[in-house]
Order: sequence, then C-alpha cells, then structure tokens
Amino acid sequence: MSDTSSLDALIQALRRLPGIGQKSAQRMAFHLLQHDRAGAQLLSQALAQASSHVRHCVRCHTFTEGELCEVCQDPGRDTARLCVVETPADQAAMERTGAFKGLYFVLMGRLSPLDGVGPRDIGVQELLERAGDGVVQEVILATSFTAEGEATAHALAEALKRRGVRVTRLARGVPVGSELEYVDLGTIAHALADRR
Amino acid sequence: MSDTSSLDALIQALRRLPGIGQKSAQRMAFHLLQHDRAGAQLLSQALAQASSHVRHCVRCHTFTEGELCEVCQDPGRDTARLCVVETPADQAAMERTGAFKGLYFVLMGRLSPLDGVGPRDIGVQELLERAGDGVVQEVILATSFTAEGEATAHALAEALKRRGVRVTRLARGVPVGSELEYVDLGTIAHALADRR
Repeated sequence: MSDTSSLDALIQALRRLPGIGQKSAQRMAFHLLQHDRAGAQLLSQALAQASSHVRHCVRCHTFTEGELCEVCQDPGRDTARLCVVETPADQAAMERTGAFKGLYFVLMGRLSPLDGVGPRDIGVQELLERAGDGVVQEVILATSFTAEGEATAHALAEALKRRGVRVTRLARGVPVGSELEYVDLGTIAHALADRR
Repeated sequence: MSDTSSLDALIQALRRLPGIGQKSAQRMAFHLLQHDRAGAQLLSQALAQASSHVRHCVRCHTFTEGELCEVCQDPGRDTARLCVVETPADQAAMERTGAFKGLYFVLMGRLSPLDGVGPRDIGVQELLERAGDGVVQEVILATSFTAEGEATAHALAEALKRRGVRVTRLARGVPVGSELEYVDLGTIAHALADRR
C-alpha cells in the first residue's frame, strides 16, 4: 500500500533486529506510532548517534567513542594480566565483580566456522602481538563455557602457549548458591576433577 | 561510562520497544554496531520518517500518510457496511481474506479501564457519528474474542443499537481445519449454540 510506505519501511527495518520477526516488528511499529512517538524519535537519534560515533578501542577492541576505551586509559590497571572475553557485555559482567584489576582483550565474537567467523574476525593476530609485548605475563581466557567458546579458548591457548605466554582459564565448577541436587552432571564432574 | 554514552543511550532507547528488556536491548545494540551498521542507519531513518509522516485517516482512524487512507479513498468499496476492528493489523488480516468489500473503522485500541483506555481513546463518538450518517446500514463488530475485545464489542453494540443502527458480530465457532477433539470447550459450546 503506497500510502503506508513509511510504516511498511519501518516494519521491514525493525525486522533487521536480531530475533524480531514480522509480527513482533508490526507490534513494535504500532506501539511506537500509536503510543510513543517520542520514543521513536529518541531511538532514531540514538541509532544515528551510535552508528556514527561508536568504534573499537585500538588496544582491546571493545566499543568506545575515543581512540582508547576507559579501561585501557586507566593508569591504575594491572598491565601484566590480560583477560580475553567474547563481548563487551561479558567484559561488563567481569568488571561488575570488581575482582579483576587487569586489562582486557575483547574478541567481539567467537570462533564459529559454520557462521564464517574465523581467527581474523576475532583478532587472533592482534591478541598474539599484544600478549607477546613483554608486559603481559598472564592471559586469562574468559570465553563462554559453550561448545564454541571452549573451542575458541582451546585454539587461543594453543597459539599463546606456542609463543611462551602463560595461559589460564576461568575455573569450571558449581555456581555459588546452588544445591548439588540441581546442578547438571557435567558441571559436578568438572568440579570434582578440579577440586582443590 | 562516559566513553560509551552513545552505546548506553542506544540500549536505553531500545528498551522503549515493547517486550524488550535490558539483555535483549544489549544484544540488539551489539548486533547492530558489530554486524549491521547499515541496518542501524536504515532503522534510524525509517523511525524518523514514520514518526513524522504517519498519521491517522480522518475517516477510519487507521495509519496513513495522506488525509484519507487508500481503502477510504477507493470508490469501489461498499459504503453501506462498516467493519470495526481494533488495529491496522486486524484490518490487514480482514483485507487478506478478500471477503469484505465495505469500509472500516479502526479503534486503534480496545476498551481497557485498567490501562486507562476509555471510550474517548478509541473514538466511540466518531464511530457513532459515522454509523449514523445515513449511508452506513450495518456495522460489523470484528474486535478480538478476548475479554477486553468482547467488552468493547458489547459496549459499542449497546451504543449503536440505541441509535437504531443494525449491528452484527463476527461468528464464533470451530476454526477451519481443526479437529473437534482439540478445540477448546468454550468454542464448541458457542459453535453449538450458534449452529445453522
């Protein structure tokens, strides 16, 4: 319908969001136009602003608006420890613990040959150079404990060890606050093997 | 973090979409910035375009970009039948059947006192004036068969009948293609009561 082309264009554009199909996109467009035009304009500006201003930190690859991100700029961080995470969200989770004072390397993804994500896409070469700069003494692999995250950690560990870098991995075990009865068997088996 | 304020603003703006919480908004922002900046710009433009251009048809209240929507402009429609639906999506579903050649009145909502949606918000007064213009001979209530949709249909039917307008309601019954065994009891009871 030519007289609703803006509406149709909006629905099609909303479908580019991950996990949003035709019905959800329709519902979102309807909600914004009927009940929240201010929200629509806010979102429009936020998208334009972010897509033109947000770029990658030249040192750790996370999202930033400057040359270096705040963590990399912070002189108080321990430059000898480098924590490798998959996404800025993972990095944020790590930061919220307050237990890590070192620096990060954010892969912005994980190895996934089926999706066409190879070593180049996650910056393996840059990580190897960074880890071999003589300052970094330990690389902590904090990729996800999924099949792809584990494969990524394994590949990175092999490459880093070949260059003589000390590599550690986050501990696998029983989550804090959980009752053994409800923990999956793989986790219990790992926790038993890694007991201390 | 001040150096990711555009990113944070984008995440907050995405949360204004219905059904989107913090995690989904983060995932969407990450996806757009990492894998689909073209999509982010497209969505930004579509939002700006739609929120400034889309308005309501003065006759039927559906979304349109002109004074009148295409259906209301079409001289080939049967002006004696007026179908009342809740949303443009419901209207689109009705149009796709190809079984209705009349005109529409789109409530852009439904009566919902708990959410503060009253008769004024769904244009009851405009509907009554439209239905009493002497041209409309039958008003077909096609609101949802939910509690709120039924309440809306009931209130509209009462008001329209008081003005001497002929009011009908979409038939309730067993959906096409369904086996009786799997149809809910309320539907079967209604189908039995309305047998023909």
